[in-house]
Amino acid sequence: MKITFCCADTRIEPWLRDFSAALPDATFTDWLTTREATPPADYAVVWAPPQTFFDSQPSLKAAFNIGAGVNAILALPRVPVIPLVRLEDAGMAAQMVDYVAHAVLRHFREFDAFETTAKAGEWKKRRPLKRVDFPIGVLGLGALGSHVAKVMKAFDFPVLGWSNSRKHIEGVRTFHGAGQLDAFLAQTRVLVCLLPLTPETDSLINAATLNKLLPGAYLINVARGAHVVDADLLAAIESAHVAGATLDVFRTEPLPPEHAFWKSPKITITPHISAVTLREESVEQIAGKMLALERGETISGVVNTNRGY
Amino acid sequence: MKITFCCADTRIEPWLRDFSAALPDATFTDWLTTREATPPADYAVVWAPPQTFFDSQPSLKAAFNIGAGVNAILALPRVPVIPLVRLEDAGMAAQMVDYVAHAVLRHFREFDAFETTAKAGEWKKRRPLKRVDFPIGVLGLGALGSHVAKVMKAFDFPVLGWSNSRKHIEGVRTFHGAGQLDAFLAQTRVLVCLLPLTPETDSLINAATLNKLLPGAYLINVARGAHVVDADLLAAIESAHVAGATLDVFRTEPLPPEHAFWKSPKITITPHISAVTLREESVEQIAGKMLALERGETISGVVNTNRGY
Repeated sequence: MKITFCCADTRIEPWLRDFSAALPDATFTDWLTTREATPPADYAVVWAPPQTFFDSQPSLKAAFNIGAGVNAILALPRVPVIPLVRLEDAGMAAQMVDYVAHAVLRHFREFDAFETTAKAGEWKKRRPLKRVDFPIGVLGLGALGSHVAKVMKAFDFPVLGWSNSRKHIEGVRTFHGAGQLDAFLAQTRVLVCLLPLTPETDSLINAATLNKLLPGAYLINVARGAHVVDADLLAAIESAHVAGATLDVFRTEPLPPEHAFWKSPKITITPHISAVTLREESVEQIAGKMLALERGETISGVVNTNRGY
Repeated sequence: MKITFCCADTRIEPWLRDFSAALPDATFTDWLTTREATPPADYAVVWAPPQTFFDSQPSLKAAFNIGAGVNAILALPRVPVIPLVRLEDAGMAAQMVDYVAHAVLRHFREFDAFETTAKAGEWKKRRPLKRVDFPIGVLGLGALGSHVAKVMKAFDFPVLGWSNSRKHIEGVRTFHGAGQLDAFLAQTRVLVCLLPLTPETDSLINAATLNKLLPGAYLINVARGAHVVDADLLAAIESAHVAGATLDVFRTEPLPPEHAFWKSPKITITPHISAVTLREESVEQIAGKMLALERGETISGVVNTNRGY
């Protein structure tokens, strides 16, 4: 089995070492080192590969993405006609739950305000806010979104969910399709975006949708930067209809130094770390799927390129 | 039914209003206003009452504390020989879980470090820490401690628990009694204190116990300030054996302006807000118990004054 890597922004040595251990009979190449001179491989392990990668590797039986979102591949001019396999969980759901729970609790319990008074050496209590006033709306109810919705329910918040197709989650009021989006937004105070990025969801969080949220809304975006119209979010925060945001993803990453998000005291910025790929779990999952394909078995996680995820 | 209030640091009007609505046939007095001139009452609603309160109210059938911890009453020179009833949950468990989960996640996911780099306008990722390296040890497995242990388990952390008597919690390694305390400490990285304050637990978190924790330990104290020997905690942080602490409770509250805790960048201070008494839930619970006692029924939450909680 011949495997080639084409992973942008990734130190490849540890991946090579772990894959070699998991698949001792396979041979490995790093396309980003040898480029078009790389011999044809059977399988590719990729992160944001360029068009020339797929053009120069015509024998691939499948490409495995080392992340959950495949929008960078589907945005290529010529999407390869082979199975594209996205990473399924591999420790990402637990991290995503950490991140969202922390952001929700920090906002709901006003820990930023307590930190400010504590830094001034001030002992100052605040009247507690009510959980019933903080309905949490999860946009996107895939594996990650469903998990997040369930955990927020366990924290006793009212939880709503919206997805493209109808979903059922115990204790969560679910909405689906474009026709029910407004009803979902109108009852949401904390909006958590966990959508896949598709032409339909690009720029979905804009002036119109933000203004439909309950007053004093809060946005947590852990999906893709392109879901949000940056200027509309800044205007909604300026108008105080939106109280603030916690953003982990941005249209351009790293977020450019001159971007207005850096300067807003109401916006918490993290550098796309909400759920990072955990190498050991990912290698185990991908190596297992390669062996399954070699045995002629079907595997899960193959992207529907029409749907976009 | 005659009810008198003696609640320090509490605005009494809203309590009076809610109790009047719940018990329309009762009459109410505020002992802190009328002191020894207050006519004898049947029941008392108290928070940190002075000795003179109980001395001047010899007809009380029971005293209801509007918090979970009754250590202030049990520390009086002459503890009244009537049932002392502590507040049971009334929304406090959910708040405690919020607080502890936030503190654990903030530390584990290094959000303070991300905040510092973001404030400098810097996009800087960090290598993720491993959940398996963060065993969480919950000291005290009463209603609040058990609830916290279960939720931290749901976040996929290894969870240990220690209590005075043997307890069983699904998925949690439990220890009990003085004989098993060292074994518990030796396997704990994040120590969460939810003990009742008794002569046995006073100053339990000291140089000896802190040094038994795993290196890079972290302390979250949401019980009582007297559980911790302040100077020992500061020294353990200074030596870097303890990485830091999140403290909600202190030996003297408000924490005096000159206290060294305010100046330590490794210590996060909040003004005793981890779980505040929610008036509506508390009035419903206490009024229900008063009516039950009047009907001659037994009630839960009566403090064992020998045990101290």
